[in-house]
Amino acid sequence: MSLNSIGRDIPDSHVGSRLLYQGPWARTPEGLRHAPPLGSIRPGDSKIIPSLREAIAASGLRDGMTVSFHHHLRNGDHVLNMVMEVIAGMGIRDLTVAPSSLFPVHGPLVDHIRKGVVRGLQTNYALGPVAEAVSRGELPTPMILRTHGGRVRAIEAGELAIDVAFIAAPAADPYGNINGVYGPSACGSLGYAAADAQHARFVVAVTDNLMPYPLRPVSIPQTRVDAVVVVDKLGEPKDIVSGSTRITRDPVGLLIARSAAEVIDGAGLIKEGMSFQTGAGGTSLAVAAFVRRYMEERKITASFGMGGTTGYFVQMLRDGLLRSLLDTQCFDLEAVESLRDDPRHVEVDCGYYANPWNKGAVVNLLDTVVLGATEIDTDFNVNVVSSSDGIIMGGSGGHADTAAGARLALIVTTTRRTRLPIIRDRVTTVTTPGETVDVVVTETGVAVNPRRADLADRLRERGLPVVSIEDMKKQIQDLTGKPSPAAVTDRVVALVEYRDGSLLDVVYQVKQD
Amino acid sequence: MSLNSIGRDIPDSHVGSRLLYQGPWARTPEGLRHAPPLGSIRPGDSKIIPSLREAIAASGLRDGMTVSFHHHLRNGDHVLNMVMEVIAGMGIRDLTVAPSSLFPVHGPLVDHIRKGVVRGLQTNYALGPVAEAVSRGELPTPMILRTHGGRVRAIEAGELAIDVAFIAAPAADPYGNINGVYGPSACGSLGYAAADAQHARFVVAVTDNLMPYPLRPVSIPQTRVDAVVVVDKLGEPKDIVSGSTRITRDPVGLLIARSAAEVIDGAGLIKEGMSFQTGAGGTSLAVAAFVRRYMEERKITASFGMGGTTGYFVQMLRDGLLRSLLDTQCFDLEAVESLRDDPRHVEVDCGYYANPWNKGAVVNLLDTVVLGATEIDTDFNVNVVSSSDGIIMGGSGGHADTAAGARLALIVTTTRRTRLPIIRDRVTTVTTPGETVDVVVTETGVAVNPRRADLADRLRERGLPVVSIEDMKKQIQDLTGKPSPAAVTDRVVALVEYRDGSLLDVVYQVKQD
Repeated sequence: MSLNSIGRDIPDSHVGSRLLYQGPWARTPEGLRHAPPLGSIRPGDSKIIPSLREAIAASGLRDGMTVSFHHHLRNGDHVLNMVMEVIAGMGIRDLTVAPSSLFPVHGPLVDHIRKGVVRGLQTNYALGPVAEAVSRGELPTPMILRTHGGRVRAIEAGELAIDVAFIAAPAADPYGNINGVYGPSACGSLGYAAADAQHARFVVAVTDNLMPYPLRPVSIPQTRVDAVVVVDKLGEPKDIVSGSTRITRDPVGLLIARSAAEVIDGAGLIKEGMSFQTGAGGTSLAVAAFVRRYMEERKITASFGMGGTTGYFVQMLRDGLLRSLLDTQCFDLEAVESLRDDPRHVEVDCGYYANPWNKGAVVNLLDTVVLGATEIDTDFNVNVVSSSDGIIMGGSGGHADTAAGARLALIVTTTRRTRLPIIRDRVTTVTTPGETVDVVVTETGVAVNPRRADLADRLRERGLPVVSIEDMKKQIQDLTGKPSPAAVTDRVVALVEYRDGSLLDVVYQVKQD
Repeated sequence: MSLNSIGRDIPDSHVGSRLLYQGPWARTPEGLRHAPPLGSIRPGDSKIIPSLREAIAASGLRDGMTVSFHHHLRNGDHVLNMVMEVIAGMGIRDLTVAPSSLFPVHGPLVDHIRKGVVRGLQTNYALGPVAEAVSRGELPTPMILRTHGGRVRAIEAGELAIDVAFIAAPAADPYGNINGVYGPSACGSLGYAAADAQHARFVVAVTDNLMPYPLRPVSIPQTRVDAVVVVDKLGEPKDIVSGSTRITRDPVGLLIARSAAEVIDGAGLIKEGMSFQTGAGGTSLAVAAFVRRYMEERKITASFGMGGTTGYFVQMLRDGLLRSLLDTQCFDLEAVESLRDDPRHVEVDCGYYANPWNKGAVVNLLDTVVLGATEIDTDFNVNVVSSSDGIIMGGSGGHADTAAGARLALIVTTTRRTRLPIIRDRVTTVTTPGETVDVVVTETGVAVNPRRADLADRLRERGLPVVSIEDMKKQIQDLTGKPSPAAVTDRVVALVEYRDGSLLDVVYQVKQD
């Protein structure tokens, strides 16, 4: 075993040529940006290919290659399943599948794993049957879990070399220009697909909405798309963009949110030109609502709001509280319509959002990010990958990226989930290293990372209930008892890469009854 | 000497590892897209550098390297001169300078050539003192002349490897997002700078208009920009965007334009969903005006107009005759304002416009392009590089790109310039191979390339004065006399690359009195 700088054991057999995590900025970029082969398309050539099967044949996909997908259609996505079914029918095997996220809808992948069609998975988030199958040890190679920014980094650095990228295209023209703002499967931003389109050897646009040339706006340009395939339906609209997310009405959630907003203000980050990102959950939105109140009182305008976008942020844009919204993913229809119609609502690609190895991602400029947690340890390490039972049920997404970039990375959470304590001596899996987490806010108090002693003093002066994370843990565990570690075997089923590609942690196979 | 497929002699000493031109699609892309080094910028790092000198020092620019510029500020550009003066003052020598075009304003480069600061030039267009100095043999190495699409191809293929790109930025934010639509030096589209920003090892944004983060729209993204330098003034606004270009009132020009429009209609290309590109000259605009008349009569809407954009095209967009305008460069203020305000007016980068080695440039989809000529030979080869005296005074720009892509490449020109005949046995320099030129329209008739016998028949049926190019030449030369070839030495001063990088022709040093 090798120990990385946050004390996680990484079995030597899985280290190989990989680096161990040594700190958020320990690894320096080396080498050249990944370069796909040059190609050309002549005047008169058509890109329309009548079927997925013919497009896959044209792509030259063979055993052992890597295919990629993006997750903007979320749990409404039919494209990954459609494509994988055709690939399986063609007898192609041993593929690595690299979607930006996996949802419950992607359950049919389990069967492709069992039949040897799929041998590897690389993703930023996995929830549902595939994640559970991986946890049970069904995938022959460890799944690689990355951050949103880390995935783009891995693509640009050639560590994730994509042979064929399949882009679910809510709108496409016959020459392969793509956007996400029109049609029955409109999902808004296509920010996660951009790096795939730039770097894959072959790019297939899959659309249910062929529009006249030239399509505008252009999210993915014709210059990187080899083939366009028209299908009946990309997915289930009601699961692509859900209804509006609402601010929590739970009194505990509101209490936490109010404290979080006071922490942000106490850190001096509610000021003209501020920037912030919150998640789409009810407590996160409640934080936004309390922050909004401060902004209104002081007539403050933020320079930008960032993140997966909801109607709540759209309303703040319309009301003049944000000068702009930067958007990699839309969570509801209001966000899709705003992205389509309001030039202040700007689609950005995931590398622009969070890649640590370009000339400056947006996360570097975030003042505040409000994040959740499944578990937190007394070193402030956060787990959002696995349940306390050790089963994979999430992933970093932008968690570790924003925590590393933001001046204030704030975790908001209740102290218990069912009967389990959130704060523990040791998290089941580390997703986000504690040295990038500044403050944890629960209903029992505000724990400030000792690295931010300055901030702790300011919050205390403001009268906030600042406690040590050890005391916070003790207070919780006095009620819940000490949690048992997850019952796992010694077989590694997933590697958790930090955003720079170094090994942050591993996930072990769960013991089955 | 080696002969290429259009019979131009290329001295062996200049062929080296280069390919000779063998036809517009003879060369197949090989190898990988060029990859610059990976890099990173950490939270808290500032990109603002107080002076050009410090930015150049930070870039690591050394003797023998390559620097690039874009030409959207045209004859109003101060940036190239400012930067080169600083570089010269730093004692850096033997540079290759690769601007997308050179204008008379860039005269100070001649002095940098004479002093050894500049050893090589690579550009798509050169007019003025620098071009004349090259023609006189003052540059120690042959200048490389490319097409607009060929320059992007050379950058993406690694043939033009840029060490430091200087982007004149009419608007920039402190993190390096750039656009061309705001500020005193607003020039509209920044389409020619995109490939430089994507592929240079180091990118410097030079701006006279620092705007708050995040700037929108984003033409060049923060993710590719290393440094931002604020200067007093990027250039001379009146020379950046000229006043409106007007339709010619010259009766000969109007006659040619009317015939050209009839040729386009005779070719069946005035139809719903059509696309076309014309230049910004008075005769080209007159062709557009006649085409517009047909469109209005028949209630036709074009899918797109393309090219350097003028107010005339903007008006067609506003009047519903074009569904969209695709724009690499704005020629007047109306175009700049339209690009800024009208979402149907779309900025496209030069690779998207014309690179033959991506997955499909816009030129491939052009129905009609209307082009000019300095000389045309009886094989339909066109020269827009040099005068009949052999002096460089232009370059392809998009000439050869659009001719290769469009279904109808139409040359419009009067038959004589001063007393010199335009149609000759042999052009001084080949810019655009005759096999990609379909029709030449002059005031004496319509010459159709024999490769397009079908089209000749259709135009004759329509009553157009179709003549052979030999007869057209004879008729002209009966008036002008036979032109003498340019008085040149045997020293090569410029290589003319076709868009695929093969050698189309060379330019020789002119004899001086």
